[in-house]
Amino acid sequence: MAESIDPEITAHVAGLAAGARQASRSLALLSRADKDAALRAMADALDTASAEIIAANDKDIARGRANGLAEGLVDRLRLDEARVRAVAEALRDIAGLPDPVGEIVRGSTLANGLQIRQVRVPIGVVAMIYEARPNVTVDAAGLALKSGNAVVLRGGSAANESNRALVVVLRGALESQGLPAASISLIDEGGRDAVRALMTARGQVDVLIPRGGADLIQAVVRESTVPVIETGVGNCHVYVDARADLDKAQAIVVNSKTHRVSVCNAAESLLVHRNVASSFLPAVLAELASAGVTIHGDSEIEVYAKEAGAAFTPATDEDFAREYLSLDISTRIVDSLDEALAHVQRYSTGHTEAIVTEDRGAARRWIAEVDAAAVMVNASTRFTDGGEFGFGAEIGISTQKLHARGPMGLSELTTTKWVVEGDGQIRH
Amino acid sequence: MAESIDPEITAHVAGLAAGARQASRSLALLSRADKDAALRAMADALDTASAEIIAANDKDIARGRANGLAEGLVDRLRLDEARVRAVAEALRDIAGLPDPVGEIVRGSTLANGLQIRQVRVPIGVVAMIYEARPNVTVDAAGLALKSGNAVVLRGGSAANESNRALVVVLRGALESQGLPAASISLIDEGGRDAVRALMTARGQVDVLIPRGGADLIQAVVRESTVPVIETGVGNCHVYVDARADLDKAQAIVVNSKTHRVSVCNAAESLLVHRNVASSFLPAVLAELASAGVTIHGDSEIEVYAKEAGAAFTPATDEDFAREYLSLDISTRIVDSLDEALAHVQRYSTGHTEAIVTEDRGAARRWIAEVDAAAVMVNASTRFTDGGEFGFGAEIGISTQKLHARGPMGLSELTTTKWVVEGDGQIRH
Repeated sequence: MAESIDPEITAHVAGLAAGARQASRSLALLSRADKDAALRAMADALDTASAEIIAANDKDIARGRANGLAEGLVDRLRLDEARVRAVAEALRDIAGLPDPVGEIVRGSTLANGLQIRQVRVPIGVVAMIYEARPNVTVDAAGLALKSGNAVVLRGGSAANESNRALVVVLRGALESQGLPAASISLIDEGGRDAVRALMTARGQVDVLIPRGGADLIQAVVRESTVPVIETGVGNCHVYVDARADLDKAQAIVVNSKTHRVSVCNAAESLLVHRNVASSFLPAVLAELASAGVTIHGDSEIEVYAKEAGAAFTPATDEDFAREYLSLDISTRIVDSLDEALAHVQRYSTGHTEAIVTEDRGAARRWIAEVDAAAVMVNASTRFTDGGEFGFGAEIGISTQKLHARGPMGLSELTTTKWVVEGDGQIRH
Repeated sequence: MAESIDPEITAHVAGLAAGARQASRSLALLSRADKDAALRAMADALDTASAEIIAANDKDIARGRANGLAEGLVDRLRLDEARVRAVAEALRDIAGLPDPVGEIVRGSTLANGLQIRQVRVPIGVVAMIYEARPNVTVDAAGLALKSGNAVVLRGGSAANESNRALVVVLRGALESQGLPAASISLIDEGGRDAVRALMTARGQVDVLIPRGGADLIQAVVRESTVPVIETGVGNCHVYVDARADLDKAQAIVVNSKTHRVSVCNAAESLLVHRNVASSFLPAVLAELASAGVTIHGDSEIEVYAKEAGAAFTPATDEDFAREYLSLDISTRIVDSLDEALAHVQRYSTGHTEAIVTEDRGAARRWIAEVDAAAVMVNASTRFTDGGEFGFGAEIGISTQKLHARGPMGLSELTTTKWVVEGDGQIRH
């Protein structure tokens, strides 16, 4: 943080943030109808501009390929007609959600007749730093607008042409609705210095949400003086208890691990109670093996893995701490619920931790003692998700304890103010 | 932040934080009955040890006087029998409050049968940095315990002997109840390095709450890598609108300014609409003058102040930005509600802003457009207070937007976890 930042870049970012602040004052006063109309106009504009957006995206893809970007990442970067239609449709879905602004969280009339109420209001200026998926640009802009916030976006440089094209379209749509273009800003230059300028724009930016890999998130948490909402690193465990229903357990383990491997709510670690190890591990490891999963474990696990025909690697301490985001799982046999709890306490990233058990006492202890955004009994870790929880949309999954914990929907993009109405009351 | 911290002090603070973490795991599982019994035992122990506590406090007072501490501060520092009884009684009051832990914030049964609920749980380890009032030591310890958190306290060095004595008594009472003494720790040595070690104990300490003057709070906000809840700097305004009831306005202005001057919810600035300036200012300035208030303003205000017999000082831009915490008020005549809103937007610290008006439209605009923890219509700014709001107890008043905004009671010392209970559900 002691390194100096190019003053031109600092000034550029400060200018964007000041424009966003100004815009946020208008956005905070918009009715739901106005915001929804703007969201629909943004969606229509994306549909209309589909060809230009795809052309810009083609440049990103060509540059990515020239730079040797892996095909998996090229695919995440790609926008085709169907994907542009889908991001536009996501904006229409956001328009269909209730407005969080104005919701009364609690309120009462005090003994002296004062009427007090705690009301949801926008946070103000929300910044997001994220990686290469251009759909995040549109999602973040839509969620920020619906919650009455201005947004400053910093996408991955690999998606820069796509993000520029998308933001031009979105800003044009806002202006067509009489709303300030500065409601949505993109920092599309300035490299690492621009990121640092954004992270230190305290007072100009109200909250910073990093979305991406563990390295990005840790760098932001470490360097930011703007309040941060930490998202989404998940070293999620499934613990199969002595009294688990082993059919349910197998389905949950396989689903948690293999349903989608690159996401934060995928399971990365399997703990099995010794009493059921010999009856459970052969079948589950065989099914994991047939899905292409590599098992990381100790010599005890190695025996089961080899018998099940699964790929095996000896597990180091780091293996148990890792968020693989791949077809890998660390596995351990534990002697007791206590040992399982201690293991989770040591390695958990506080995202999602699941127990499979029919034992009411074990379930109750798991729920009470595991310290995580989501604690589950007899369910796949994949359910920790704003869509699954019924929020309608999600800006990320918070793994911190302040402000928001777990899936963040529109409410989590608001703060509150206390409104106090009286008739001349004074304190005695 | 690049300066190095004495490694022994870092290790000492890390040791306290680790002990607190360990203790927090037990505290999180306590029933309300256990916590209330401990709070009552703490209160009884304070009553029993009153003489030792007062003897320790005498040493602080003698040292303070020898160091030339102002009598006002000596009075804030002082503990006598009545005050020890009062802090003990405050613990019994906390025992009487509902337990925030376990409260279900929201919940539902999803289409697939999963039952989800968002439940309040303790944050974990809460640290507080505060100044010279030893009653804060007991209040903070009590509120932390009731909300299931371990607490690490760093009081002002002027109160060090008092705080030591209090914490010894409180820890003894915890142990007598079978609870870990490490639930309450005091950092009573290490000077500035200890504060810096605490502010950078990210991962060991979950949240840091500074309570004190603007300098302390700004230093903590700037240097802390632990998430901070910013509290209590209040440059609170009262705006007397063109359509104010001037009797109510006078009572509200005088009460907001003079009821207690050293607190963050005292008014520091008065704005008066030009249409009522000549009918309002003479009487209100005379009453402020008779209460000993000095008026800070421009030449227009000077004329009114002199006619009212009030002490007057020309106001600089800094005067309008200042939290006086004394018998001073900045005053300005504005030509319109818009000008009042612009003034508040420029100078507000986001604490409490009041309008006095009988005009529904003006009140609605004030409520909607002022960005502060509390916005008031026809009420004294002094009402922004956890006790007044009915929270029963208050750990501080947050002026930030994330996690908590306004008076913080027990709920604000909690986070939530999602509990997901199923019967083998997996994602399709």
